[in-house]
Amino acid sequence: MTARESRLEGERPPPVAAPGAPKKPTMADVARHAGVSLKTVSRVVNQEPHVRAPLQARVQAAISALGYRRNEAAARLARGATMLTLGLVMENISNEFYARLAAAVEAASAQHEALVVFGSYEESPDKERMLIESMYARGVDSLIVVPSAADHSWLAEHASLTTVFVDRVPLGLESMADAVLLDDVRGGRAATEHLLARGHRRIALISDDDGLSSVHDRASGYRTALRSAGLALDESLVVRGVFDPGQVAYEVGRLLDLPDPPTALFATNNRAAIGILHALRARPERPAYVGFDDFALADVFNPGVTVVRYDVTSLAGSAVDLLLNPSPEPRRVKVPVELVARGSGELPPG
Amino acid sequence: MTARESRLEGERPPPVAAPGAPKKPTMADVARHAGVSLKTVSRVVNQEPHVRAPLQARVQAAISALGYRRNEAAARLARGATMLTLGLVMENISNEFYARLAAAVEAASAQHEALVVFGSYEESPDKERMLIESMYARGVDSLIVVPSAADHSWLAEHASLTTVFVDRVPLGLESMADAVLLDDVRGGRAATEHLLARGHRRIALISDDDGLSSVHDRASGYRTALRSAGLALDESLVVRGVFDPGQVAYEVGRLLDLPDPPTALFATNNRAAIGILHALRARPERPAYVGFDDFALADVFNPGVTVVRYDVTSLAGSAVDLLLNPSPEPRRVKVPVELVARGSGELPPG
Repeated sequence: MTARESRLEGERPPPVAAPGAPKKPTMADVARHAGVSLKTVSRVVNQEPHVRAPLQARVQAAISALGYRRNEAAARLARGATMLTLGLVMENISNEFYARLAAAVEAASAQHEALVVFGSYEESPDKERMLIESMYARGVDSLIVVPSAADHSWLAEHASLTTVFVDRVPLGLESMADAVLLDDVRGGRAATEHLLARGHRRIALISDDDGLSSVHDRASGYRTALRSAGLALDESLVVRGVFDPGQVAYEVGRLLDLPDPPTALFATNNRAAIGILHALRARPERPAYVGFDDFALADVFNPGVTVVRYDVTSLAGSAVDLLLNPSPEPRRVKVPVELVARGSGELPPG
Repeated sequence: MTARESRLEGERPPPVAAPGAPKKPTMADVARHAGVSLKTVSRVVNQEPHVRAPLQARVQAAISALGYRRNEAAARLARGATMLTLGLVMENISNEFYARLAAAVEAASAQHEALVVFGSYEESPDKERMLIESMYARGVDSLIVVPSAADHSWLAEHASLTTVFVDRVPLGLESMADAVLLDDVRGGRAATEHLLARGHRRIALISDDDGLSSVHDRASGYRTALRSAGLALDESLVVRGVFDPGQVAYEVGRLLDLPDPPTALFATNNRAAIGILHALRARPERPAYVGFDDFALADVFNPGVTVVRYDVTSLAGSAVDLLLNPSPEPRRVKVPVELVARGSGELPPG
């Protein structure tokens, strides 16, 4: 039996107030009873100076009359707290993928009474390192990182720092660090095969920086699917290194203006899918398209946006599990993906 | 002069490496030079046990040969750190409003070298209190809260806790706490007047829990605009207490099925606007609508979604400013709002 279990067994459940039991008096009740402001009550309870004696006496009398007791939850928590604070380092929390990941990491951490500190590095590898160093310096010893920098080997200097990487393989630390990844190759392949099965032969790839393992693997699934279908890769249909939906919209317009344009598009992330939506708003063509990453409004568009999706809760839960159960050997967890057909990926070739 | 200023003046700027200067050797360089794994180097550098003596010697030799020095940034930060950790308590970070707020709070905090801990209470007032108590117990002494609970007077118990409320007035603490609010009354009025100016006379209101000051004030702006236009409020066109886009979609369908349906809708938050989009996807009617809160895809829909928007960076920046400059008197900052016409709010009556 662990120490934790024995402590729990030794504890009795807290008494439950009967439905008809009187409500515990609050500071607001004390203020009303004494006819003073809440601030005055707060000053008296917190033993701050400069409260005039008659006021102080009125507040004390109200406290006694109502049987008010200061809330001790905070003090109890402080005594029992394991002080686990988990750092979450991401590109940008206002991107829906990261916001969903943050929500899921927080929910998984709350189950272990851990708090989450977060930081965004906005595509800057220097800021990514600074953020991690800053969290480490402040006592954060458990980190979940969606890495972007080209080299993370410097992290090995902090032996006491337990780090789990999410979504992308950490370059320079492949042989040391835990990582929870999506089944990106399969996702890229499934998206492309879905389009091939509807008769598309000219399928464009719209992708981010393929130095990131996730982007690289999704593109690799795309190429495998084309090859398996006996099609040659047409480099003129491949767009790399575009991040911003505006850039993507421009590139999609350029592709659709080609003499022999694509009839379908595969976007390797949510921003690229949004860029496609932007581009198509202003154009008559109706190419099929499949995105990678689900997003809240994907089923509100007409047609709905067909995407490769995965369970963000499972992604975050696996990362927190690995953090809390460290192992000397590096581990890889692969989260499955699935294709959700909503309309945009089922359009026929022009 | 404050202690901080004098410390800063006493420091010299760190030397800047010349562009042509040799790259500082990393642990990865040491590992390559010694022909061992990064993990072995990490163990030696961190003085962990169980590294065989010959391996240890090889690593030490490589360290000397390359002039490798352990990164001391973390230690420096730890000495200089003011340990300001700011708690951010919100309903749900996966809602775009909160994600944007979190990103902006983080950016504003980073300018003051503060880290941000965040927590979501998912519409549960008990969880909201537990989260705040838990942050407090762990030494978080600066809080930004988007309040939802009906009573926050218990917060007065924690005199050392500096709290700024955002988006909504904290009930029970109105006379004590700082708050940064949107100009909700004006926003509700502007949205409704915009629709009135296009000739609409039957304008529905789709709103959240109007116990929240923001929702209450937006609805109050709506009523004021109708009254100023000489129109009576038709209670059958007012929907209250709907949160979920699915519920909103149901209510919009119900309104459009009325014998005398509304020709325009005003949604008091982003989820309600999304619910309207859901409902209209499946229906032939094209009522005009205006949302409150901008969202990333608002201009991708056709017509684009007309919204009341505001500067989230300014909302977050004001909150952080108030936190860092406490005052004995409670302060109210009102962030201006503006109407952005994108098409949906300019549709004519049926």
